[in-house]
Amino acid sequence: MNPMPPSNVTSDVRMKGFASRTTVDEAVAWIDAQLPNFSKLPTEEVSLLESRGLILAADVVSRVNVPGFDRSMMDGFALSATETYGATPYNPLPFKIVGTSFPGAPFSGTLFPGQTVCIMTGAPMPNGANAVLPVEKTERQGDSLLAMAEVSAGKHVGAVGEDVHRGSTLLSARRVLRPQDIGVLSSIGCNNAVVVRKPRVGILITGNELLPCGTAPKGYQITDANGPMLHALVKRDGGQPVMPGLVPDDRESLLAAMASMSESADILLVSGGSSVGQDDHAPQLVATHGLLAIHGIAMRPSSPAGMGLFNNRLVFLLPGNPVSCLCAYDFFAGRAIRALSGRSVDWPYLRVQAKLTRKLVSTVGRVDYARVKLIGNNAEPISISGASILTSTTSADGFVIVPANSEGYASETIIEVFLY
Amino acid sequence: MNPMPPSNVTSDVRMKGFASRTTVDEAVAWIDAQLPNFSKLPTEEVSLLESRGLILAADVVSRVNVPGFDRSMMDGFALSATETYGATPYNPLPFKIVGTSFPGAPFSGTLFPGQTVCIMTGAPMPNGANAVLPVEKTERQGDSLLAMAEVSAGKHVGAVGEDVHRGSTLLSARRVLRPQDIGVLSSIGCNNAVVVRKPRVGILITGNELLPCGTAPKGYQITDANGPMLHALVKRDGGQPVMPGLVPDDRESLLAAMASMSESADILLVSGGSSVGQDDHAPQLVATHGLLAIHGIAMRPSSPAGMGLFNNRLVFLLPGNPVSCLCAYDFFAGRAIRALSGRSVDWPYLRVQAKLTRKLVSTVGRVDYARVKLIGNNAEPISISGASILTSTTSADGFVIVPANSEGYASETIIEVFLY
Repeated sequence: MNPMPPSNVTSDVRMKGFASRTTVDEAVAWIDAQLPNFSKLPTEEVSLLESRGLILAADVVSRVNVPGFDRSMMDGFALSATETYGATPYNPLPFKIVGTSFPGAPFSGTLFPGQTVCIMTGAPMPNGANAVLPVEKTERQGDSLLAMAEVSAGKHVGAVGEDVHRGSTLLSARRVLRPQDIGVLSSIGCNNAVVVRKPRVGILITGNELLPCGTAPKGYQITDANGPMLHALVKRDGGQPVMPGLVPDDRESLLAAMASMSESADILLVSGGSSVGQDDHAPQLVATHGLLAIHGIAMRPSSPAGMGLFNNRLVFLLPGNPVSCLCAYDFFAGRAIRALSGRSVDWPYLRVQAKLTRKLVSTVGRVDYARVKLIGNNAEPISISGASILTSTTSADGFVIVPANSEGYASETIIEVFLY
Repeated sequence: MNPMPPSNVTSDVRMKGFASRTTVDEAVAWIDAQLPNFSKLPTEEVSLLESRGLILAADVVSRVNVPGFDRSMMDGFALSATETYGATPYNPLPFKIVGTSFPGAPFSGTLFPGQTVCIMTGAPMPNGANAVLPVEKTERQGDSLLAMAEVSAGKHVGAVGEDVHRGSTLLSARRVLRPQDIGVLSSIGCNNAVVVRKPRVGILITGNELLPCGTAPKGYQITDANGPMLHALVKRDGGQPVMPGLVPDDRESLLAAMASMSESADILLVSGGSSVGQDDHAPQLVATHGLLAIHGIAMRPSSPAGMGLFNNRLVFLLPGNPVSCLCAYDFFAGRAIRALSGRSVDWPYLRVQAKLTRKLVSTVGRVDYARVKLIGNNAEPISISGASILTSTTSADGFVIVPANSEGYASETIIEVFLY
């Protein structure tokens, strides 16, 4: 009926498979070796209120003392220490209360001998006083005070600059800003912080079968899951996702999108077309126009993942199958993004110990990423195949990584589960 | 010299101290008992791209199958399974290749006996085919194929709805959305998610000694550290901070600010004026206009912290001293905010074991929050006093909680450090 093959009969190129696969450890080592070349992101000034978790770009040296005045550390009475010498409950010494010092509303006069000022915690010390006698060691009647104990000079007084010294380096460059750092920066008068810009991560989604997010799947087309998922993963890891629409699945369109994106983004993610067939343009483009450092990794899923350099940017080639995409992101791309955003490169998942309810088979030489459900302390493996079944990762509570040197785990083995 | 006490001499009210203190455990139990009353936050629709970490408001039932068609799970040849029966390498059976099915670009015809279609992973199955013979089990020459193995019906075919079944409940209400959930929601055609609105947290900062963030400290005034710090903490814990300017430190202004804020916020934080003096308006206002459930807590720092209800909102009274403020936030307010935002109520800090380099003294009956520096596996306590020294929390790597039933730890004790 069809004497000649129809024009859309493919060559066998796609079906060749990978000649050899890189190990996961080698791929991670390649990433780690690249990172120092990519850690110099531009700096930007952001409001303190937007600065949490960002990397401070330069040392912060304070131009002010905090506090800028001596202050009381106790509720009590400010006085001259020498005038308390000899005071005991049996030998109370009299003072005249001549005023009060509140925080922000100090006593404006100067103490003369025999005088004291009622002082609140945090309030400025009056002139003429050098110590605070705690309220518990006094007896008061109207404006008369009896001191029942001695204090030494400087006692219960917080000195100028006791929190922050003028000229001191308060926070060092490369510090990831914590809430209390932001408080300290505010206390020295900052409104903004100069930080390393978040790594911009370009997300290019390709695949002729795909419809964009927000469209119902129809006919032989499916709606893109990887774009929104990668967007969320990049944000989780401290990156700033940049996601244009779907990229048409041809060489020229993808090359143009990669070239354009690499002008503004620090890292490129390409989802889809990552394998070895004629329609898998991404690896060919990276190999031709950049460096395809790694392609084909000894793992399941995600074996068609790759990585390299394109226009001096790190580029990660993620398989289109969504579970593979998630797995390859977490193993490789996420590591780089977390490093550039100042986070720990480790997996951002809590870990728990659990007992396998049945055996988990793997193959020596390959890393497996196996989704599991947790029932109490038991881990129930979910089908390890089906890289296209994204719901295997939503019905799972987490995953187990079976290392390359393992044939898997027997039932009842205690394993480590990473919690999604 | 001053025969009469000046008019600004305070009464001793402030100096009375707390008659008794609540334990930390009792305060936490009070919060936990309140939470069920406050977990019904309004729902809102947000873009999938903004939905990570939010709580799904209702079950999501899919109106579509994903995929909407049978698809190949392998690169290979789609054919009728019965026609492969008897095929082995020694008895190869011939087929005619009549087309190709790519993802999104299916073979449009129908297979007749003896025909096959070259098919890619993820591509639609052609009419007339019910199985895929993997490429490794074939030999091809031009448009002629030799099948070297049998396949059974349905083999290597992903059925309609294998990822998502139409009518199935995909994700349940109250689920905190993960990146892969967002992918799955996109795959069924969603552009938005209906989620529980983030808890709005009103941050009221009071204190006459304070200047607003962005102002250099001057004279006897200090610049607010607590506002920006609390803003960052609230965001960290999944809340939406609402922070007007500083609130003047008088009863009427604070009451008005609390009343106004309680109209829009779900939780109120009041920093400053939380103690028992005449200038500590917040507890009096909560007691008068709401319920001051707890005031004065057996802990150091933060003992003047309190909590209660105001205009049917949870209100947390945080001491103005910034370390106390941080500590009281983390022990109490943060717990409530994390619970309402769908997060774990536990401290959001990693924990490590470390050996104390010197003893850490505490008092039975009181919980201590002690900042420590980590040097390798050693924990070096930073002065436990000085709740006003916020830099004690920026120079620290974390903190140790000494429980109420402990007198502290001897040098060289292995303790648990919460890492900032």
